[in-house]
Amino acid sequence: MEDIIFGKNSVTEALISGEREINKILISKNIHGDSKLNKIKELAQERGIVFQFVAKEKFLPYAKYNHQGVIAQISPIKYKDLDEFLEEVPPNSSLVILDGVEDSHNLGAIIRTCVCAGVSGIIIPSRRNVQVNAIVEKTSAGAINHIPIIKVNSLVSAVQRLKNSDWWVVASDASAKDNYYDIKYNDMNFALIMGAEHAGVSKSLLKLSDFVVKIPMLKEFNSLNVSNALSVIIFESVRQKLKNQL
Amino acid sequence: MEDIIFGKNSVTEALISGEREINKILISKNIHGDSKLNKIKELAQERGIVFQFVAKEKFLPYAKYNHQGVIAQISPIKYKDLDEFLEEVPPNSSLVILDGVEDSHNLGAIIRTCVCAGVSGIIIPSRRNVQVNAIVEKTSAGAINHIPIIKVNSLVSAVQRLKNSDWWVVASDASAKDNYYDIKYNDMNFALIMGAEHAGVSKSLLKLSDFVVKIPMLKEFNSLNVSNALSVIIFESVRQKLKNQL
Repeated sequence: MEDIIFGKNSVTEALISGEREINKILISKNIHGDSKLNKIKELAQERGIVFQFVAKEKFLPYAKYNHQGVIAQISPIKYKDLDEFLEEVPPNSSLVILDGVEDSHNLGAIIRTCVCAGVSGIIIPSRRNVQVNAIVEKTSAGAINHIPIIKVNSLVSAVQRLKNSDWWVVASDASAKDNYYDIKYNDMNFALIMGAEHAGVSKSLLKLSDFVVKIPMLKEFNSLNVSNALSVIIFESVRQKLKNQL
Repeated sequence: MEDIIFGKNSVTEALISGEREINKILISKNIHGDSKLNKIKELAQERGIVFQFVAKEKFLPYAKYNHQGVIAQISPIKYKDLDEFLEEVPPNSSLVILDGVEDSHNLGAIIRTCVCAGVSGIIIPSRRNVQVNAIVEKTSAGAINHIPIIKVNSLVSAVQRLKNSDWWVVASDASAKDNYYDIKYNDMNFALIMGAEHAGVSKSLLKLSDFVVKIPMLKEFNSLNVSNALSVIIFESVRQKLKNQL
């Protein structure tokens, strides 16, 4: 089975990272050449990957994607095993656990944020969560190739496994008492659980968490989009790390 | 001219805020009743707004939207005038200025973040920026009704106008020397300029800015999505305000 990825940036990132096997790159005859396209052709040639110029009709099945006239047929992403991940991960790492995130754009943005913030991996459940699809790849702007995605059957077992390996578990929940900036994220391995936009983090996971934190809102309003909430918390941990202060 | 807004949450929010005139609410005969739909009917009745049950074919023109079988015909949003805004705004306020944000999902998420963080208004240019459309309204999850959007012909003039009114101007740019968390946002009116995802903030606006800040990345990677970058910076200003510390 093959995935497709689309858009100039996604294809370029996949060529650069070399993580996944690219079978073929299709380029529409109707698009104008530019520096990005030249870069794609150059990288493909270097790596011995076939690229073909095809009639724009070939792109009809992908009309719903913003493909910019460029797609690549690529091997599916390899999900990582949790045990394998834990063996390899360096000290003072962070992990993000997604509990029921359903929107592809959100998952793409989350992956991008995690890479920028140096997060070591993302755990998603094999059910009740969006999986890595073409829209996720595109929205992640290639970030998907820079971070392992760990798929597990049970988030509860995964969190227990982390706790047994001395990871601290922090959950984000709007009804928490503590503010996210009052936790010290330095000097520990921590996993941050983010919930579905409406349902939040499941009760069973909240119970297992060492800390439950909220983002204080300055206006009464339902809540932040999940990728934005994650960015706020994860970059607070980066701030503490770089400034070496709470 | 009328706008349409779609989806149960957007329509509910518009009914609650009462900011804009709702002409009519259309509900598909094919959807099942639930508590959200009951709430819509109840609010519409209270406010004397017509709602009609219509055949699902009526929704065909809106197929590309995730309308959940509910749309409302609504007066277009009223953009605010900058002078009027500046007369009314309380001390120690914040403003967000968008310089060339093109994606509707991003603008929706930005509006949502701004409301949560207590930002007083959002300035967009009348050209080279996405305007408030149905997707923006939907992605904002109703937040659009809780914050004034100020449309200006020239961002340069707007920033000069702000500086003349003693606002501090902070621009976010990946090539900045200072980190966003080293600026003190308390005790001042500040406007934060966020740029287009690829081009960044225009040179003319960078020149006018009192501070230019970056978000330090822990991994070499192009950049955060603009709504996520905004969330990180604006919630740092909230953290400083609530903790009363840099």
